[in-house]
Amino acid sequence: MVTLKEVAEKCGVSATTVSNVINGKAKTSEETRKRILDVVRETGYKPNVMAKGLRVKKSRTIAIIAEDIAQFTSPPVIESIMASCEEKGYRVIVHNLRLYDRWSDTWYGQEEQFHSVLDPVVQDVLAEQVDGVIYLAGHARIIKAFDDDFYLPAVMCYAYSDSDEIPSVVIDDEKSAYEMVQYLIRMGHKRIGFVGGRRENIHTVQRLSGYQKAMYDNGLLFDPKLVYYGDWTREAGYLGARELITQGITALFGISDQMTGGIYDYLEEKNITVGKELSVAGFDNDSISAFFRPQLTTTELPLREIGRISAEIVLKKIEEAGTDLRGGNSYEEVTKVPCTMVIRKSVTEAAKYINESLM
Amino acid sequence: MVTLKEVAEKCGVSATTVSNVINGKAKTSEETRKRILDVVRETGYKPNVMAKGLRVKKSRTIAIIAEDIAQFTSPPVIESIMASCEEKGYRVIVHNLRLYDRWSDTWYGQEEQFHSVLDPVVQDVLAEQVDGVIYLAGHARIIKAFDDDFYLPAVMCYAYSDSDEIPSVVIDDEKSAYEMVQYLIRMGHKRIGFVGGRRENIHTVQRLSGYQKAMYDNGLLFDPKLVYYGDWTREAGYLGARELITQGITALFGISDQMTGGIYDYLEEKNITVGKELSVAGFDNDSISAFFRPQLTTTELPLREIGRISAEIVLKKIEEAGTDLRGGNSYEEVTKVPCTMVIRKSVTEAAKYINESLM
Repeated sequence: MVTLKEVAEKCGVSATTVSNVINGKAKTSEETRKRILDVVRETGYKPNVMAKGLRVKKSRTIAIIAEDIAQFTSPPVIESIMASCEEKGYRVIVHNLRLYDRWSDTWYGQEEQFHSVLDPVVQDVLAEQVDGVIYLAGHARIIKAFDDDFYLPAVMCYAYSDSDEIPSVVIDDEKSAYEMVQYLIRMGHKRIGFVGGRRENIHTVQRLSGYQKAMYDNGLLFDPKLVYYGDWTREAGYLGARELITQGITALFGISDQMTGGIYDYLEEKNITVGKELSVAGFDNDSISAFFRPQLTTTELPLREIGRISAEIVLKKIEEAGTDLRGGNSYEEVTKVPCTMVIRKSVTEAAKYINESLM
Repeated sequence: MVTLKEVAEKCGVSATTVSNVINGKAKTSEETRKRILDVVRETGYKPNVMAKGLRVKKSRTIAIIAEDIAQFTSPPVIESIMASCEEKGYRVIVHNLRLYDRWSDTWYGQEEQFHSVLDPVVQDVLAEQVDGVIYLAGHARIIKAFDDDFYLPAVMCYAYSDSDEIPSVVIDDEKSAYEMVQYLIRMGHKRIGFVGGRRENIHTVQRLSGYQKAMYDNGLLFDPKLVYYGDWTREAGYLGARELITQGITALFGISDQMTGGIYDYLEEKNITVGKELSVAGFDNDSISAFFRPQLTTTELPLREIGRISAEIVLKKIEEAGTDLRGGNSYEEVTKVPCTMVIRKSVTEAAKYINESLM
């Protein structure tokens, strides 16, 4: 195999010039460019062989840029990314933007505010000479985290990137909600209240879509009056339950465990026993859910799995990085990872309920 | 004010030599050393003025070395450290040792295993040229994290350092447990079961000490049969409740909310109503505790506060760093930060209980 140095010698230029040309960043003359590419072809270079020569400063380091490590979803993802990277001999640097801690939820859509915190961190990441970057979102949405000329292998985790250069690894919200509603229907429930998060939120939209598909597949009418939009808080769950309880429901599906806690609060206040007079299902398998009475039937987020897959993709991109330093592109643009239902005691058969009493 | 450069010129040596001598790291001749120190004295240098000259590579960066960001105690501490540091214009790098994720609890006391993960990270931290380090423990114990010649300002957070060069910021376990037991006694409880964590654990030892002091101060006998040692799990709480319920108690004090969850499990199984037939108190104010039925009376850990104080101390050390690069020493060796009681619904007056029924 010919080395980068040998190609450079053969062309009578520096190794840097060769690498610039190969990466399309050349400021050399057209003549030199042509000569270099001819030599590259003659010597039969394979891109990844070249890459090894080019990336002399390979640091075997991955950076995680986390929107907020205090989101309950973040630590398991980070630890899983770290475990996978370490296994392959990469170390991991964690950057924490602390977006929710800084601004609660007032920063959503505020691009300038967002970039005032993100951009200096991206500069740090570039200065650290890492080999790849995983951006870890706090909630799903389409995110433009990097400039179009960002030249490192990157993966968007727990959200959608705006660029097909940056693959996304997300949870399969729609399928997971579909499965839960299927289960509720199999348990005999036909009128199922849906306590959603914010209306425009991707998690809400996709989980509602799963709910609607399950209703359709079972020949059940979708009644928009059974949908309540909250803001993910316990209080929102309480208000959602209060509104939907008047609709002749036998089950409530709260799409976060936190909100489902508020559903329990309302039902307790009204002396409606969960799992006896009304079924309740949650989403997240947050640690709180195993302490509800009765313990909550919910959907476990595949947090370690999305971390593992994100690491796998970024490492593969690095391995395959050739003429394009952003890395190989043998990946799905969006990987949707299924969740797992956790069946506990809050959902029981509808037939046993006397629901007129709830109206 | 004279600059370092001027001192160096006056002595006819390089600035590096002056800084080495001032830091006691000189490999210069005794003669040169003496000349330099004479000039330093003559010119009336103040150590911190010197420090500013010496630390030309000041990076305005603090490193956090966290034992595990997935411990529920870690994210709030980290975010609070970051907020405090940013306010003063410092950025923060987070290193995550992932000790519990790697080895569950099998690494306790395994110094070699511990250092196999810690030492490369300490090397990274030194290479990053940070100005100071905060070590964030996952649980309280005496920790030797750094070699004796570690030369950066450092603070031990949520545990005790083995060195008086490194101040410790911890929660006041004893006082907080004392207050909770005082409260239980004021509510009429005299026989109070204590469900502890591991026997040798500092949190257990200090919380038990607080329990004992409160009993003593109220003229109540300390009955060792009322103490159960568990391993912090929900299962341990269940077993603790099962054992202590035979001792004629009217209240149970579980020293973690997780274990208290197990206490609730046992009592539910035996149809003993918390807050009606038996009072229960927890410790941590973990997010789960607000979802217990009835909601748990517990003790909130001052996590943001220990983060804030740790940041304050390390920044002060940096500011005051003079001839000793490890920084100033105008701090308490151990700062104990009080917790706050969170009174909810699981503790009620003992007088109402008919406890013979529990025996």
